[in-house]
Parts: sequence; C-alpha cells; structure tokens
Amino acid sequence: MKIAILGAGQLGRMLALAGIPLGLEFSFLDPSERPCAAALGKHVRADYIDAAAIESLTSGATVVTTEFENVPAEAMRLAGRSAPAFPTAQILSMTQDRVSEKALFQRLGIPTAAYMAINSRERLENFASLGPCIVKTRRLGYDGKGQYRVREPADVAGAWTLLGAGPLIAEEWLQFDREISIIAVRGRDGSLAFYPVSENEHRNGVLVLARSRLDDPIQPLAEDHARRIMAELGYVGVMAVEFFQRGNALLANEIAPRVHNTGHWTIEGALTSQFENHLRALLGLPLGSTAVHRHSAMVNCLGIMPDRATVLRVPGAHLHDYRKLPMPGRKVGHITCTGETDEQVTALLNQIIHTTGVGARGDSLIKHGKQ
Amino acid sequence: MKIAILGAGQLGRMLALAGIPLGLEFSFLDPSERPCAAALGKHVRADYIDAAAIESLTSGATVVTTEFENVPAEAMRLAGRSAPAFPTAQILSMTQDRVSEKALFQRLGIPTAAYMAINSRERLENFASLGPCIVKTRRLGYDGKGQYRVREPADVAGAWTLLGAGPLIAEEWLQFDREISIIAVRGRDGSLAFYPVSENEHRNGVLVLARSRLDDPIQPLAEDHARRIMAELGYVGVMAVEFFQRGNALLANEIAPRVHNTGHWTIEGALTSQFENHLRALLGLPLGSTAVHRHSAMVNCLGIMPDRATVLRVPGAHLHDYRKLPMPGRKVGHITCTGETDEQVTALLNQIIHTTGVGARGDSLIKHGKQ
Repeated sequence: MKIAILGAGQLGRMLALAGIPLGLEFSFLDPSERPCAAALGKHVRADYIDAAAIESLTSGATVVTTEFENVPAEAMRLAGRSAPAFPTAQILSMTQDRVSEKALFQRLGIPTAAYMAINSRERLENFASLGPCIVKTRRLGYDGKGQYRVREPADVAGAWTLLGAGPLIAEEWLQFDREISIIAVRGRDGSLAFYPVSENEHRNGVLVLARSRLDDPIQPLAEDHARRIMAELGYVGVMAVEFFQRGNALLANEIAPRVHNTGHWTIEGALTSQFENHLRALLGLPLGSTAVHRHSAMVNCLGIMPDRATVLRVPGAHLHDYRKLPMPGRKVGHITCTGETDEQVTALLNQIIHTTGVGARGDSLIKHGKQ
Repeated sequence: MKIAILGAGQLGRMLALAGIPLGLEFSFLDPSERPCAAALGKHVRADYIDAAAIESLTSGATVVTTEFENVPAEAMRLAGRSAPAFPTAQILSMTQDRVSEKALFQRLGIPTAAYMAINSRERLENFASLGPCIVKTRRLGYDGKGQYRVREPADVAGAWTLLGAGPLIAEEWLQFDREISIIAVRGRDGSLAFYPVSENEHRNGVLVLARSRLDDPIQPLAEDHARRIMAELGYVGVMAVEFFQRGNALLANEIAPRVHNTGHWTIEGALTSQFENHLRALLGLPLGSTAVHRHSAMVNCLGIMPDRATVLRVPGAHLHDYRKLPMPGRKVGHITCTGETDEQVTALLNQIIHTTGVGARGDSLIKHGKQ
C-alpha cells in the first residue's frame, strides 16, 4: 500500500519512518530541491497545484494526506480524485482561515479569546481600543509568522503597515496559566483515541518544549473539545488542538489538521506514536493504543543541530535529526527523553539543555517540575 | 555520516530505520535485485567480493558493517581499506567456522556441547557411537540449514550422503532446559552494555519466538561469557551469543557477530534498540541505555505476512513487515508485544498467534507464562 503525502518535511519523514515497518510505501510532493522526507520514498518535485505532478504523486496510492496545513486546499481536492484524501479540501480551507476556525469553535460552544475579523484599519482601531490584542493574518501564518502584538492603540499603525495588505484577525491578548494541546485521532469508522495532553512552551511563537501530562485534571475537557471538533468535521486522522488554560477553562487557540510538533514525544512515550496512528486511521486499520507508561518531554532543536555525541551521552536521550539545512529559527530536529517520574524527566531535560544549548539562550527553560 | 553495510536484508532495513533519525545515511551492497533495505538508502547491486562495487559502497562512508554473518570475510577486508570495518574480517572468518568458534569458547573456559571436527566418515562413525549427535557443515549454515540429526549410528550414512562433501562438525545432541541468548554491545572505547537475556524457541532450526527475561538469575553468567568473548576479540558493535541452559550452566552454541533476531524486541522493549546501539558503537558514540521497563515478546512471521488489520487489532501489537517476497519458511516479518507483566505479554502473544496464525501450526507455541 502506498501513501501519497503533500509536503516532504520532517512530518512526512516521521510518517514514513512509522509506516515503513508496517509495510507501507510513500510518495511526496514538494517544490523543494531536497526535502528531508525524500530519502524515504518517491519525491515528485513540483508546485502543489501542478495537476500532472499530483497525478504522478497519487499514482497507485491507497490514500492521500498532507503534512503541511498551508498546502493549497485545491491540491488536496485534485489529489482526492485519485484516492481518498484526509483531511479533505474543505477541512483544510476551514483551518487555513483563522476566522472560520474560530467560528467553528464558537458554533461548538468551545470558548476562545475574544476576536474580530479585520478588513479595515478603523475596525482594528476599534478592537485595539478595548485592550491589548494580537493581530494575525487570517491565512498562511505559522510559528509566529504573520503576527503583530498591539499593546496599545498607538501600535495599530505598525500592525497595519506590516500586515494591512490582506485580511486579518485581531484577538484579545490573553492572560493564561499555561498552553496545552491534545493529540487526537479518529478512524474512518469514527473510532477515537486521545493521547495525554501535552504542556507546551513557545518562544517568539515557536514551540520549544512539549511535555506529556499524565492524569492531568484537564484531560477530560480537552478530549471533549477535540471529540466535538472531529465529529463535526467527520475528521479522519490525527488532529492537534491547541488551547490556553485559564483556571479550569480551556480557550481553543487553533487546530492543526495533521500530526503535530507537540505530539513528537509519542514516538518514544506512547505505545503507538501519533505518526503510526495517523496512518492507521487513514487506511481504516484499527487505531493503536495511546497508552503512555512513562513521562516524556521533547525539546526542539532550532537553527542548528547540537553535537550528536553530547546529546547521546544523556542517558535515554532520543535524537531526531531531520537533516535539514541550518537556518536561524528553523526546526531542524528534536530530542525526547522519558522517565519514571516527571522530576526525572525534568532532570534529563535540564541536562540536555545545559550540555547542548538546545532550547535555551542563557536561561533555563525548565522552571518547574510540577504539574 | 554514512554507514556502508554488506547485505540489504531485514537487519539492514532495521539498522537504517534506527539510524535515519540520528541523521545517518546508508548504502548497501547486495546481489539481490530488490533487497528489502534498498528503500532506505543507496543500493549497490553486485557480488560481495566485487572490488569496484565495494568501492562504490564505501565511497564517503564513515564506517562499514555487515548485517549478514556469511558475507565473505574477504569482502569485509576489502571494505576495511576505505573505512573502519566492524566486525573485522578476522572475526567474521572465525565465527563462520563452527570449529574455530567452539575452540574460542573452550579457550575462554566457556562450556559447550562435546564436539568433534569431522573430515572422514570414520571419524563421524566414531563420534556417533558415543551417543546421539547433530552433524553440521562447518561453514555457511543458518536457520537449521546444513544440519542433520544422527540419532543412532545407522543414521551416519544419510548424514554423510547429504553433507559429506565438505568439512563438518559433529556435536553432542544436548538435553537442555531452555535456549537463551544475550545481546551485548561494545563500543570503540571498550564500553559495554547488555540487554536482559532473551528466552528463545526454535522450530526446525528456525527461531519462532523470543521473549525478554527481566531479572533472570542466569543474567550475570550470560553477561560474563559475552564480556569475555568480546574482550578477547576486541569486538566493536552488537553481538549475540546463543546458549543452551542446563541447570545453572550455560553451554555456548554460537556467536552472531551482528544484530540478531532474538534482539528485535529491543525496538519497542528497551530504551535504546540493538540497532541504534550497534550504530552508536560503530561510530564511537556513547552507548545508549539498555534499560528495559516492560516485558516483551516477539514472534516471527515465517513464509507469508499475516493480515495487517488482524495483527493491529491486538492492543499494543507492533508489526514489522520486511516487504520480502513470500517463500516457505522465509522470515518475512515479526510482531512484538510488550506488557507490564510476563503474563500480560503471554496473553497478547496467544491472541496474536490464535488470531493471525503466525508462529503456530496447530498447537500453541506458548506453553508457559513462567520465568
């Protein structure tokens, strides 16, 4: 069976590493010259909406998916002519627009930050007069790109200069206790599975740390929100939902209709990884157990990989080098460690951060070992 | 860094699956048309002793290894001109000859079955007159091939007809309590690590089942034997040593100077797999933790792969499909399951065997859940 994937970055690479043991083969469509998943299957190099390339990509494919949520929905629609395609073009279109995503949350009764669709400077000025906010492009933002923080009305001018050319959304600047995400998976038969929530830490909009949170009291609420979203969309595959937690409430931030950086710790930390479960879901195979028997934490390698031997000297450190060219801020790899207790994982993470310098610029990222 | 491997079968495939996340690249030399590791690196198709092919294989390689212990030692010697090669040609020559292997055990004071090098029918008749024995070719035997069981002196004629053309070894037919193996790894700096012993079950000379044995009382003795062998040979990489256990004694059967089928359960069952640790050892990287936190068992898929969905319906079953053409008795894949207790693993294994038919022909392979 062959899986056709739009995009050939690290998520495609890790999907293939999970699928090859199951006997699956992979093909990737990616305009880059040497994308990092290409070593693990056939690489069709073309633009995403090149119909001939999509035909080549999907030739013989059992199913189509994407590892890149900003892939043109039209590409997914074209690919879906040859084989079942998940997520659908319709779901992709919806999650690619921050306003329609927020509208979905509201329709389902899932709280969000206050927000407003912005199509004029006047509207933005009105929204900014209510308090600090963050202005984002409605489409194509990721890793903190296409965002501008408006602390006070005077900042609107800067935001408008930078982002005003396209449709925007303004969101209330939230005070929150922590950021969490849940990785959920839904099969073609509607079967469901959820991983323990992940507690996440971003810097400048880019994920730096993700830690499994076993038996977290917020787990049932996060599952309930994800369940409602997936049921509403008739979703198939792995989905991540990111939340801000404030007290006992979860405010939905965004949906990633794909495997997600905050679920990378499932490779070593769960009985079945998010990557294997995405493939199982797409193919109509039974979902794998999401049971987690140890605590896990993952730190991203941004810009450049740390020294391999230094990482591997840390007992139980699992290195994932995506083999991407170094570039400031770019996600080029990650390191996961697992332990019997959360304190043990914190100690290992600190050791990784202090010996290799990943994740940290001066100060330690690990401020607490508590829940 | 590039790893050059002689052979491109399932062991090469699993080495690459373990090494790609570390940022390694692979090249394989294998005379087969589409060997199953070829999907994961460059495949040089040629005979093992083709000097030009070896040059192509090792071009740019940091280190050379083999996944096939019957590779001509000469190929390893040639490859070793371009990059450090482990195991060395000398070690391969020794382990390829059952008589020199047995002599090594004896030199190190490691017990073995009584044996005799056989170069005449008369010698075999003499040895067979002492009791039941098994006659094997000195070289190139694997998975029960090149063996003949001599129950009584009258069987010598059959053995001689089948195997008498080449040098042989005759070994006492042992009564034993169980078969175990230990997977050991030694780094370039002499650092050592050992996995918990594996208890193994063969049928017709082919491994069917391997189960991790945590805190087994025989562990220290198995480690001691493996340590002495590796130190004597100046060994680098993963080695498996197979033993027959009789009471509190271990009788060494054979050495596999490579990753081994009885260590496949380390992929899911140990903090670092045998495959990753072999690569770490070769590259002079710190060895990974061999800690085991759950019980594991592995069953081989012989001849043909079972239905994928049936396997994956078993909670926590890990499927490894090597993508080899079906052939009677051929190792085409394996399935591993893990659990909190040995009884839980036995129950899962039974479920796999009963629903998929792997490993079993009629009767269950699992006779006990005891240590």
